[in-house]
Amino acid sequence: MKIYKYPQREIWADLVKRPTFEQNEISELIAEIFKEVKDNGDRALIEFNKKFDKAQTENISVTDAEIKKAENQISDELKIAIQEAKENISKFHTSQIPEIQKVETTKGVVCWRENRAVEKVGIYIPGGTAPLFSTVLMLAVPANLAGCKEIILCTPPDKDGNINPAILYAAKLCGVSKIFKTGGAQAVAAMTLGTESIPKVYKIFGPGNQFVVAAKEYAQRYGVAIDMPAGPSEVLVIADEQAIPEFCAADLLSQAEHGSDSQVVFLTTDLKVFDETIAAVEQQVRDLPRNEFANQSLENSSFIVMNSLEEAVEFSNLYAPEHLILAINDFEKYIPVIENAGSVFLGNYSCESAGDYASGTNHTLPTNAYARNYSGVSLDSFVKKITFQHLSKEGLQNLGKTIEIMAEAEGLFAHKNAVSIRLK
Amino acid sequence: MKIYKYPQREIWADLVKRPTFEQNEISELIAEIFKEVKDNGDRALIEFNKKFDKAQTENISVTDAEIKKAENQISDELKIAIQEAKENISKFHTSQIPEIQKVETTKGVVCWRENRAVEKVGIYIPGGTAPLFSTVLMLAVPANLAGCKEIILCTPPDKDGNINPAILYAAKLCGVSKIFKTGGAQAVAAMTLGTESIPKVYKIFGPGNQFVVAAKEYAQRYGVAIDMPAGPSEVLVIADEQAIPEFCAADLLSQAEHGSDSQVVFLTTDLKVFDETIAAVEQQVRDLPRNEFANQSLENSSFIVMNSLEEAVEFSNLYAPEHLILAINDFEKYIPVIENAGSVFLGNYSCESAGDYASGTNHTLPTNAYARNYSGVSLDSFVKKITFQHLSKEGLQNLGKTIEIMAEAEGLFAHKNAVSIRLK
Repeated sequence: MKIYKYPQREIWADLVKRPTFEQNEISELIAEIFKEVKDNGDRALIEFNKKFDKAQTENISVTDAEIKKAENQISDELKIAIQEAKENISKFHTSQIPEIQKVETTKGVVCWRENRAVEKVGIYIPGGTAPLFSTVLMLAVPANLAGCKEIILCTPPDKDGNINPAILYAAKLCGVSKIFKTGGAQAVAAMTLGTESIPKVYKIFGPGNQFVVAAKEYAQRYGVAIDMPAGPSEVLVIADEQAIPEFCAADLLSQAEHGSDSQVVFLTTDLKVFDETIAAVEQQVRDLPRNEFANQSLENSSFIVMNSLEEAVEFSNLYAPEHLILAINDFEKYIPVIENAGSVFLGNYSCESAGDYASGTNHTLPTNAYARNYSGVSLDSFVKKITFQHLSKEGLQNLGKTIEIMAEAEGLFAHKNAVSIRLK
Repeated sequence: MKIYKYPQREIWADLVKRPTFEQNEISELIAEIFKEVKDNGDRALIEFNKKFDKAQTENISVTDAEIKKAENQISDELKIAIQEAKENISKFHTSQIPEIQKVETTKGVVCWRENRAVEKVGIYIPGGTAPLFSTVLMLAVPANLAGCKEIILCTPPDKDGNINPAILYAAKLCGVSKIFKTGGAQAVAAMTLGTESIPKVYKIFGPGNQFVVAAKEYAQRYGVAIDMPAGPSEVLVIADEQAIPEFCAADLLSQAEHGSDSQVVFLTTDLKVFDETIAAVEQQVRDLPRNEFANQSLENSSFIVMNSLEEAVEFSNLYAPEHLILAINDFEKYIPVIENAGSVFLGNYSCESAGDYASGTNHTLPTNAYARNYSGVSLDSFVKKITFQHLSKEGLQNLGKTIEIMAEAEGLFAHKNAVSIRLK
């Protein structure tokens, strides 16, 4: 842990810096994987399963029988929990569907926007230390609500060639069209280029390791869009004197357990809360199954005493955290001054894990200070907003002169003529 | 012109292909320019003005006196036109400011989104053959409405070191904070890295040549966001038997005059309209001052007779045009089946130049088939949507079990503990 008390503003810029991770030179490897997938399609993916995931897969498509089996493998308790989370995510993302608002900007000139789904989207779900079926919910639910026609999901198989049953169950429940057993950069390549089994998509979503991140970057050369740039997960907690140190500690650790590169920042105005939160972190971390990750992550974490809550929010805006928890009494007052954050949790009972799983908000959020210029995933991420306009003859008569003058001033006479010829 | 009558579906994929332009290897040059700007700041920009724009500039900041002077240099007629366009753009983009909608997803669990402006944005306006003051309106008006605190604008000076007065007037009118005399990749580098005069920004907007496009791409390595990927401008016109060939021709030419790489596609179900539109294009092009561009662009243009309007719209969805004009009687009927387009113009009097200048819609739109996965610029482009959530103690009691079950199933016990410790 790094401890700071009342740090001078001059050093804030240093304190908000994320550690820079060595960017391994993997672009050549990525290019090779794309070429291999392009040349050999499904067969390349089966080979990569063998090579990278030690998995035997005769077929990369998940069958209906496998999905049926998965449904029987998970407990009713988990099914009900997943259904409840899906319900809340649906409610919140449905509220993001806008009403069409027609605006008459000049008499006879009517403009509006309409949402249209991105027709084909791909969801990547990593394998590894945790089976992220919650991310399936976070991506497939809004894709489905948006009306995406094709929602495909790729995830690496285990050594026996199987997919975690909770992932299969969630995918089926949320309307994923097709599921494929392929992971890493090769999965991204397959969704970008298409194979015999896997359709090409227009936009790729989902988290992943450095190879997946680099492959998503690379995919953009082929005209594919991606959800957002990636970085390690983060939480910043601001606590006042009424905050409960055990709660703050639990929230900080729920971030720290994600991985050794997770970013954890704690700001408080109260010295007692400061000391007790540190003590609670040290105590709680011992019992965690993933405490190796948590301990590594805590080494890079910052615990800072601030002069005031205003100053703490200002610091947070500079840091631009993915998750911001305001464990303060008067949180209403500070909402308007929050400028940069992915998702904000208010008060002592809004723990980050509520938003990670089931409150309804999306957990795919901007990290690495991208909260300054990117939003988290929402219904908007799965649609294009197309503008429409209708000018009546009267409308063009009212606006025509303005268009003609501007077009002429830009030296674009054909633009002008498109009006003049109609008003003749 | 390329003429096709009732093309078979098998060849549609070829017909919607954009010409691939030779991607010159300019990434090294871009890297050098970024290094030069990083090392020498303003001085580098003054040197680049000399080298690339043959312009002497002692100072890259535009002074208040220069803006004042510009105001006197342009006609009252143009001022009024610019003001009217600004008014309409403001009206339409104001309608995009959402109401805050709080959703109670579970009793005691309330979630919502709030817009926050991207604090610092940069607008690039190219020099060259047309002084694009209309693009200043399209980018500065929504930036200002969104509440961006710093809106900076870079544009190359002419040989005398001056900026086009209409650009200065529009920038001042729309609330641009600072204007700088610098163009090309070096302007993008300056907005990305910052110099003594030019502040670093979080997001860069605006069109430009291949150097600007490559520099915007490169800027993303530094965490800067950009508006969208770029390509040559496009229009696709669908006409039925009641369309007016002279109007269609004028619209096609208003696209063709942009540059020799502009894309123009004409689809109709009516042979008479087909022949007459081609004849009208050939006639109207002769009188255009920019007919050299228009003629080059027309060489690559496609004029296609289709079996039905349904088929034409299907073709258009495959092409995914930046601008789509429906010069058809029954356009209402076809709106719901339009899937991929940047901006749509309905009926015989909705010419593209209305949207280019003054109807209120934005003219910064996705090209090169990016209308499949990107929206045009809107108020949304200048904000982040931050999610907020508040759980009361009761709310967490209602939802807690679900979170605990899901967290445990993902093997994330600290996530579970953040709930358990609160419910104890």
